[in-house]
Amino acid sequence: MSERDDSTPRAVTMRDVAQAAGVSVSTVSHVVNDKKGARIGKEARERVQRAVQELGYRPNAMAKVLVKGHSRFLGLVADAIASTPFAGQIIRGAQDEAWRHGYVLLVANTEGNEAAETEAIAMMLEHKVRGVLYSAWYHREVEPPAGLTETDCVLVNCFAPGGDLPAVVPDEVAGGYEATRMLLAEGHRRIGFINTTSPSPAHDGRLEGYRRALTDAGVSFEPDLVVDARPDQEGGFEAIGPLLAQDVTGVFCHNDRVAMGVYDGVRERGLRVPGDLAVVGFDNQEVIAAHLRPPLSTVALPHYELGRVGVRVLLGLDQPADDGRVVVGCPPVHRASVNVTAGVNGPPAAPH
Amino acid sequence: MSERDDSTPRAVTMRDVAQAAGVSVSTVSHVVNDKKGARIGKEARERVQRAVQELGYRPNAMAKVLVKGHSRFLGLVADAIASTPFAGQIIRGAQDEAWRHGYVLLVANTEGNEAAETEAIAMMLEHKVRGVLYSAWYHREVEPPAGLTETDCVLVNCFAPGGDLPAVVPDEVAGGYEATRMLLAEGHRRIGFINTTSPSPAHDGRLEGYRRALTDAGVSFEPDLVVDARPDQEGGFEAIGPLLAQDVTGVFCHNDRVAMGVYDGVRERGLRVPGDLAVVGFDNQEVIAAHLRPPLSTVALPHYELGRVGVRVLLGLDQPADDGRVVVGCPPVHRASVNVTAGVNGPPAAPH
Repeated sequence: MSERDDSTPRAVTMRDVAQAAGVSVSTVSHVVNDKKGARIGKEARERVQRAVQELGYRPNAMAKVLVKGHSRFLGLVADAIASTPFAGQIIRGAQDEAWRHGYVLLVANTEGNEAAETEAIAMMLEHKVRGVLYSAWYHREVEPPAGLTETDCVLVNCFAPGGDLPAVVPDEVAGGYEATRMLLAEGHRRIGFINTTSPSPAHDGRLEGYRRALTDAGVSFEPDLVVDARPDQEGGFEAIGPLLAQDVTGVFCHNDRVAMGVYDGVRERGLRVPGDLAVVGFDNQEVIAAHLRPPLSTVALPHYELGRVGVRVLLGLDQPADDGRVVVGCPPVHRASVNVTAGVNGPPAAPH
Repeated sequence: MSERDDSTPRAVTMRDVAQAAGVSVSTVSHVVNDKKGARIGKEARERVQRAVQELGYRPNAMAKVLVKGHSRFLGLVADAIASTPFAGQIIRGAQDEAWRHGYVLLVANTEGNEAAETEAIAMMLEHKVRGVLYSAWYHREVEPPAGLTETDCVLVNCFAPGGDLPAVVPDEVAGGYEATRMLLAEGHRRIGFINTTSPSPAHDGRLEGYRRALTDAGVSFEPDLVVDARPDQEGGFEAIGPLLAQDVTGVFCHNDRVAMGVYDGVRERGLRVPGDLAVVGFDNQEVIAAHLRPPLSTVALPHYELGRVGVRVLLGLDQPADDGRVVVGCPPVHRASVNVTAGVNGPPAAPH
């Protein structure tokens, strides 16, 4: 690697721009930094803008911070960007919305490590971030690190006790309701629910949604049709046996991985999805849900939207409800695991 | 994150290195920064490198930042953080290594969008980044955006025509070799290979590795046993039929998603993995590979390591070979799809 100074031309300075535009350096500074209250004629402003273009002047963002007194940074703390695409989707939603408003995201991945988290927040504070999004890869209660009290903070896909900090979270109840509705709408009445063994808002909310959907359809709730299982393929594989023994014709699974295990369990018994058992997942984890045989009907966790709305709340563009929450919907995704002909989406376009 | 004077001993300076090596400070600077055109004798260069090692000198210590006109930022452009965990792993590896040397990553996700890319790089240049990692979520040739010529750049999981830019890439040939070896080691001789329909370094490299492994084992290459398929579950499902008809006893799949489709195809025929067909994947995509029934033996794509090494090359800590490349190995991951008893890893710990 070469040093920049001898491999690239000298950087264009504000002075160069001033000279080319025939104005003072402070006029250039005012235009470039969009200084409020500065009285600069339309024509001079245009000359500066033209010179900036022609010379390829790049304002130093650090210098702008000094001039403006705040940075264009928003911080985003994420806890698991390397293990699922979920945090990536939050980042993408947050970035799109941040850029729309002229902000840059400082992303820090902590993989749940407390020291990394402390360090990440210290770094963000050092950079005078406008505020911080503190996000979790699965919806849960968190204790936000102390450093966050030094800046504005919005919790994304998590919430804190007390509700002092705004929290943008998925609507677990409505998601569970939608998932169960997908089965009820196809005429199923004996519907199992493989929930998770982990105590969590997802556990309680999806169960409540399942119960409400049954009630609204005039189907009575049978506790035996709800099984808690490890929320992955192995859990689904184990849990489906006892449910099939109770003659369920449809099952709502805590997530897509559980549904994948259910498929395996169904096949081991020589049965078919959806003919012998209709299956609905949760998450819409692309690499799994769209590519099972048959493709899995599921409910999408709105990670992109959580990130996007998080930035809007941080910038004061959206307001949380009185309890500090902004609740984001979980839309149903219809494929072919409930009713073969109902699958509106075929397999997605070929990946690389 | 940063070197802290009160928690660490006095930082080793370039002057310390110069003294220990018996050369001038500028010679150290030239060696450490790999200055192009500098004439430094082999022996002096080696003395400097030894002193750097022995003293633990960090060429990009924080003290140099202002002098050099660089910020403490490294940029990382990623093209698909929302669709797979791969980019997240590159980010994680890059961040860990950047922090180790007192740098902060500015991450920009472009999802392959050219306008977003231009904007991202302009943002990074404005922040006077020390350099930029330009990464791709799958290994391929890229045309790096023009803006990157204004700063130091290292390509990660991609490369550019001409080889002017250093490129950190996975060793596709060795990966294909390892995957095939896993099957050969269990006595398989009729080994199919479901390759991808996409022209790519992965296509060519893994095929070459497959052929070399066969040759080294004294098995002749049969072109009919290589099938190109869409690199996902649907592709694997379609491709396995013709291979089974040719009595293969093992199959190497272009990636884990293809292997997942192969499992489905094998089951549809009432056959079993690995008893009737041994299967090896590629990628080690956690959410799939570890959770198939049986868990999938595969070869890991080293995304974390690619990100980590990318930062090291950018900071001058690792040197590319003469062709501009740094090649990173793809380690085999033994589970139970080749030999049930050979699976050293059971299912991983329960996720949330």
